[in-house]
Order: sequence, then structure tokens, then C-alpha cells
Amino acid sequence: MKLLRVGQPGHEKPAILDAEGNARDFSAHTADIAGDAITPEALRRLADIDPQSLPLLAEDRIGPCVGRVGKFICVGLNYADHAAESGMAVPDEPVIFMKSTSAICGPYDEVLVPRGSDKCDWEVELGVVIGKGGVYLSEDEAMDHVAGYCVVNDVSERSFQIERSGQWVKGKSADTFGPIGPWLVTADEIGDPQNLKMWLEVDGKRHQDGSTRTMVFGVRHLVSYISQFMSLQPGDIISTGTPPASAWG
Amino acid sequence: MKLLRVGQPGHEKPAILDAEGNARDFSAHTADIAGDAITPEALRRLADIDPQSLPLLAEDRIGPCVGRVGKFICVGLNYADHAAESGMAVPDEPVIFMKSTSAICGPYDEVLVPRGSDKCDWEVELGVVIGKGGVYLSEDEAMDHVAGYCVVNDVSERSFQIERSGQWVKGKSADTFGPIGPWLVTADEIGDPQNLKMWLEVDGKRHQDGSTRTMVFGVRHLVSYISQFMSLQPGDIISTGTPPASAWG
Repeated sequence: MKLLRVGQPGHEKPAILDAEGNARDFSAHTADIAGDAITPEALRRLADIDPQSLPLLAEDRIGPCVGRVGKFICVGLNYADHAAESGMAVPDEPVIFMKSTSAICGPYDEVLVPRGSDKCDWEVELGVVIGKGGVYLSEDEAMDHVAGYCVVNDVSERSFQIERSGQWVKGKSADTFGPIGPWLVTADEIGDPQNLKMWLEVDGKRHQDGSTRTMVFGVRHLVSYISQFMSLQPGDIISTGTPPASAWG
Repeated sequence: MKLLRVGQPGHEKPAILDAEGNARDFSAHTADIAGDAITPEALRRLADIDPQSLPLLAEDRIGPCVGRVGKFICVGLNYADHAAESGMAVPDEPVIFMKSTSAICGPYDEVLVPRGSDKCDWEVELGVVIGKGGVYLSEDEAMDHVAGYCVVNDVSERSFQIERSGQWVKGKSADTFGPIGPWLVTADEIGDPQNLKMWLEVDGKRHQDGSTRTMVFGVRHLVSYISQFMSLQPGDIISTGTPPASAWG
């Protein structure tokens, strides 16, 4: 399934893409694409519904593909080439940081450059959406906790991140710095998350062009690893790092 | 007002302390102590209600004093003596980091030492609870956005925080690493937040004994400063740093 949320900010309705790519109103069957509505059981129930049987949604804004995100957890320097261009060594263990959940916006919403910014930057990333909570997960268990995937733009302000007294969160958390979507693609449709192309264009010019094949730490390891430090809940998002060619490194 | 939440985890009821220190059931007047229920307007409405007119709550667990916290924002090295004992310089600007919101627990809940921990630590802090959202707030505006205050124990695992590849969030986010409470004291009851005693005892032995007077960056500055980097929402918590004498520095 490709699940999405359609409507004005704060008033998005749950929807599903049909075979022709049209958004169908899923609100008769689920309150939202969020939290307990994306557990394995909930997704199995939704998968039994024929999208063609649902009303078409009038064209409207596409919102963030997951609502009420509890934690927006990011992985830094997770592509060897990106670490090199940033002048940083590939870390021995995953580098984890947080983005503010209030940074989350729809995939086509305008990104607002924050006041005082002079090094605003893009980072296309594979987002992993947690569907089943847990803690201390083994790598064998990890993938059972993934509801699916989405695209994340980990928008970053490099001077806030690096030059303003320690810890990256300052440069990662402005409103609109977290476009996610356009849809949550359930894990059964993806197969191997380590073989996905990813690219980023600005005004038609391609800047990033990579593949999740070159991640240092893969999805399975990341979910297990992060769960050693904090519990995960349905609706949490893990953004898995960016390939080379952000603007400011 | 001293507002609290009483009940088992996930099922807490809103409550208010009466003049004798008894918890009174506030659920006929507010759905929760959280989000839109702690805006200035909502608090003014609640302040008109005589606690003595409310039913007494049977003794039970005290939960976190704020529900559905969106962001748990922390300030590092914000007491000069604590920075010195940590071997770190007082920063030019506030150091900001995040704790996982899933770390939040009640003030008297058991703190669980995470697997693999060998440097678990305490940090008593003044928590600032946001009541009115905003972004790019001036220092003149900042205090109008504060609903009130609570005590935070910013429980930390120093080896996870410092020795496990960059960014502090790994050592700050385990389940039960964020006891908050016991009550949200509304701002009108506090007066000057820069003149509050704070202490921490473990098994009856006093370890930390300080005052918010020695904060490097005060509450007014912190609220304004943080709002330059991310928007604030009602129910967000800012934990303002710890005075000297944590166990591991």
C-alpha cells in the first residue's frame, strides 16, 4: 500500500493511492495514518480493502505521510562519501541526533529559510517508519517493527548546526525542515530497503544521485541499534542519512 | 495552581492540589494537563474553579505533570560550576540537545538503568513548560509563553552520551530517563524563576544543592533563544541545565 494524508495542515485525511495513482479517501476505515493505525495488525486489516471501492479525494495538499510523529530520529554520516565531503570520519557506530517533530511538513510544502540563515542545505534520505514498538531489538527482530518507508528531506542549516555551540539539533529543527512523504510505502512493497535509488533536484538541477546500497549502517542494524538507547513507538521515524552532494557538506 | 496527573501510566487523570496538598479530580473541567489545556486562556479558566469544590482523588500513582509532550528540549552546561566539573568550557551560547519524549515518566516512578550502562547519572533541573506557542520570540515576549515550571531529573548515561560516537541524545533517551513533576506550578505562583533552590538526594544523601540564581543563561533568554531555532508549542518542556555534583560530571 501507498498511504498518504491529504488536506490542509492539521486537517489531513487518511488516504490510499489506487492502481492509477489517485488518492482514495480511507477515513471510513482508519482515523489517521499514525500511531496505532500503522501497527502490523492495523495494516493487515487495511490491506484487505479494495482501494477502488473508496471515494476519490478531490485534489488537495498532500500532508506529511505520518501524523503525530513521536520521535524524529536521524542518522548522521551514514554514507561514506557524504562523511568525506563533510570532512568527517565514518563513525565506528551510528551517529544519532534528533530533529524537532514540529519541523515536519508535507512533501510539497514550501521550505522556509529561517531568519539569520546563510547555509541552508538539503539532504535526501530514506525514512523508516516504525509500526511496532519495542526496545532492545535484535537485528533478527528489527524488520518486524518497520511499517514502511518514505522520503525525508533532512533540511539543515549548517551554520546553526556546526558554528553555534555544540549539538546539531539547532540546525535541524526549524519549521518546514522536515518534509516527509509523499506516501508511506508499506514494507511488503519494498522488499530490500538497501537497493533503492534516491535523488534530489533543486529547480530542475540534479544535485544528489545515490542509492541506499552505499549506506554504512543498513536499516536492519539501525533499528536494532537505536532501540538499545531508547524505546521505539509506532509512528516514530528514523531518517537514515544522506548520500553525497549536499550544498554545504 | 499546582496541576498534576494521577493514575496508571497512559491513564492519568488531570488533578489540582488543594490548599492542604490533596489531589482533587479536575477531569470535569479539563481533558488533560497537556497541549491546548495549558494555554494562558485555559489556565485562566481553570484558576476560577475552587479546588475544594472538586472530588478528592483516591491515592494513586502521580504521573508526569504534562501529557503528550511534543518536544523535550534540554540545555547543557548552563551552570558554570557544572561545566567546570565536566571539563567543558562555559559555552558562548546555550547548548541545546533533545531528550526522547518516550523517556518521560512520573516523578516517583522507578528509573530503569539501561542494558550496558556503567555510568548512569542524575541531574536535577528546572523544567519550563510552554503554554503558548511561538517562534522568533523576543526576550520581552518570552515569559508570556511560559505556562509554568516543574522539576526534571535529566537522567543521563555518560558512556552512551560521550563515548559512543557523537551527539548526546544516545545517553539521554532511555525509558524512564525523564521523570517530571510532581506538579506543574503555574508561572503566577513562582514569581522569579531565577531564585529557586534545587537539590537532589539519592538514598537520603544529598548530592546536588544549588539555586537557579547561578544559571548562565536564564529562563527568559532560553525561551527566546530556542525559539530562534524551532517553533515552540504548548506542552513542550525546556529543561534548563543542572547545577554541580552529578556523579560522572
